Amino acid sequence: MTYISPRAKILSKNIGRDLMVLGPSLISEGTIVESFVVIGHPIRSKLLSVRDKGSVIEQLMDEVSNGAIIGRNCIIRSNVIIYENVEIGDGVETGHNALIRENTRVGANTRIGSGAIIDGDTVIGSNVSIQSMVYIPRGTVIEDNVFLGPNVVITNDKYPPSKRLDGVKIRRNAVIGANATLIAGIEVGENAVVAAGSVVTKDVPPGEVVAGVPAKPIYSVDVFIKKRIGYERLETP
Amino acid sequence: MTYISPRAKILSKNIGRDLMVLGPSLISEGTIVESFVVIGHPIRSKLLSVRDKGSVIEQLMDEVSNGAIIGRNCIIRSNVIIYENVEIGDGVETGHNALIRENTRVGANTRIGSGAIIDGDTVIGSNVSIQSMVYIPRGTVIEDNVFLGPNVVITNDKYPPSKRLDGVKIRRNAVIGANATLIAGIEVGENAVVAAGSVVTKDVPPGEVVAGVPAKPIYSVDVFIKKRIGYERLETP
Amino acid sequence: MTYISPRAKILSKNIGRDLMVLGPSLISEGTIVESFVVIGHPIRSKLLSVRDKGSVIEQLMDEVSNGAIIGRNCIIRSNVIIYENVEIGDGVETGHNALIRENTRVGANTRIGSGAIIDGDTVIGSNVSIQSMVYIPRGTVIEDNVFLGPNVVITNDKYPPSKRLDGVKIRRNAVIGANATLIAGIEVGENAVVAAGSVVTKDVPPGEVVAGVPAKPIYSVDVFIKKRIGYERLETP
Repeated sequence: MTYISPRAKILSKNIGRDLMVLGPSLISEGTIVESFVVIGHPIRSKLLSVRDKGSVIEQLMDEVSNGAIIGRNCIIRSNVIIYENVEIGDGVETGHNALIRENTRVGANTRIGSGAIIDGDTVIGSNVSIQSMVYIPRGTVIEDNVFLGPNVVITNDKYPPSKRLDGVKIRRNAVIGANATLIAGIEVGENAVVAAGSVVTKDVPPGEVVAGVPAKPIYSVDVFIKKRIGYERLETP
Repeated sequence: MTYISPRAKILSKNIGRDLMVLGPSLISEGTIVESFVVIGHPIRSKLLSVRDKGSVIEQLMDEVSNGAIIGRNCIIRSNVIIYENVEIGDGVETGHNALIRENTRVGANTRIGSGAIIDGDTVIGSNVSIQSMVYIPRGTVIEDNVFLGPNVVITNDKYPPSKRLDGVKIRRNAVIGANATLIAGIEVGENAVVAAGSVVTKDVPPGEVVAGVPAKPIYSVDVFIKKRIGYERLETP
Repeated sequence: MTYISPRAKILSKNIGRDLMVLGPSLISEGTIVESFVVIGHPIRSKLLSVRDKGSVIEQLMDEVSNGAIIGRNCIIRSNVIIYENVEIGDGVETGHNALIRENTRVGANTRIGSGAIIDGDTVIGSNVSIQSMVYIPRGTVIEDNVFLGPNVVITNDKYPPSKRLDGVKIRRNAVIGANATLIAGIEVGENAVVAAGSVVTKDVPPGEVVAGVPAKPIYSVDVFIKKRIGYERLETP
């Protein structure tokens, strides 16, 4: 059963059913929102504040939500959940079952894969490619044109469970291979590459390629790009 | 469309819409259950037993379900699925899209992250922190105060696919780092720590810190705790 | 709210509520489809083609969908999404929250675990066991009787993001351990075994067992099978 907040502003004509749009959310022109989506989900403390206040939980959640802003020409696929105080740029597309928590900004034309989780308090640039099932915790910064392969796991606590969260920073054009693990506080420099399956425990300088557990430098990004060009020339058998 | 079993007992006022509560399930006082949640889902053999028995599948599933028990002051977020014969303690909170299968007991105040899967026949203690996308198979035992980082993968079959399932045991206060893999049958001792990205193939003695593929001892938990204290004192830049 | 295409053919009596069946989909006899499922979801280009065309997005999606074919005696559990041009054999079972994208064929009696993603253009054999949260990208070929442990991550681009996709091939009876990463273009031979947590960067010859980062041969599958037999004889403590 669809629930649309009286405070929400829906400029798009492409809205599915059985979804919830809470608070003063904005869904801009040309954006497709499929079924079973929640937009503007309130943060935990607000959810607790409405406990036992009445019987229509959606309406109570709606009243406390600040809403989320979804730009133009986006695709938000089924079962996606977007929290309040999230701002999604124009042309962003998500897969199914993705979760984007509070205080997150996602730049234009970024792709967020199916099952990916962005756990809040995160800044994500434009033209970023986040593949399926990536995990991005609070405090992460991801700059423009970064590529995160499937199942990349980023952390924010070096000695868990501690009282300090120390976000990872991934600079412009960096590439993180599938199923790599990035330890709290590290910085992956511009144009750097992390090989699939690596565990990155230290900063990766700009333009360096690292691999292994723990990850060590193997060559520079120039070599990587040469290899890519050779690889692209091959016929797929 | 909401379906609440005539046998269910709902003492909470905070129930979302478009959810299913099957069998003699109990939802206790102060618990919030969001939309698109299933509570009391029947096990496979019962699901097969109702095949072709009639046209309202929810009602048939309801009739065969033993239900689940959800304690007081819990939060069960949207799209969570909880099977029959599950008992959830007071103050438990789940993220979105989590799955908890049959014959599982979850102790008080435990957190179950978004997308986490607890695959049944599992005992989980109190104050356990299960981060997002953790996988816990049948036969696992997790004691009180354990921390499981994001994407931890636990297994229960050492030579798959075999006929024997051999569950992992994680003792009190142990910490398992992000994206670590724990091989079937191992025991992680009290206060032990597994570094992120490790593959643990042997028992980890109490108080030991292990890292790598395969995981090897690196130092004792005293060193880890000293490092944590130093880390917590640092200013986040 | 359930949406069933006027072009769909539903021969099963076991259909849940709040689900969508789009295009000329076929759901065969004896198949159980739970709630919040989408069958026949259109591909991206068709989704874009209906943008701003009208206000009932499900109906527009339905009109452009080619539908999916689901065989007999399957179980499609809640929140599963199946795209158009997918063909699912008899006796296939999925967990919850699985995603199967376009142009995919799944053989008879295969199991697809909860949260698993099959990203399209994929051929999957019969009697394959895909455990929870496995990621299978476009272009992958998986033959009969293969076992993929929980959280296995397969890739299809060796130097991402490149212009060439090079699918992994996994031959009959191969076993891939939990949380292993398979690099684009490799072939895992018949009866080969990849240990849990490995990163496989090269072809694995038939009957060989590999482990580590990067994965190296450790022994032959005969040794593995002897170990399995000894393991199965042990009593679980």
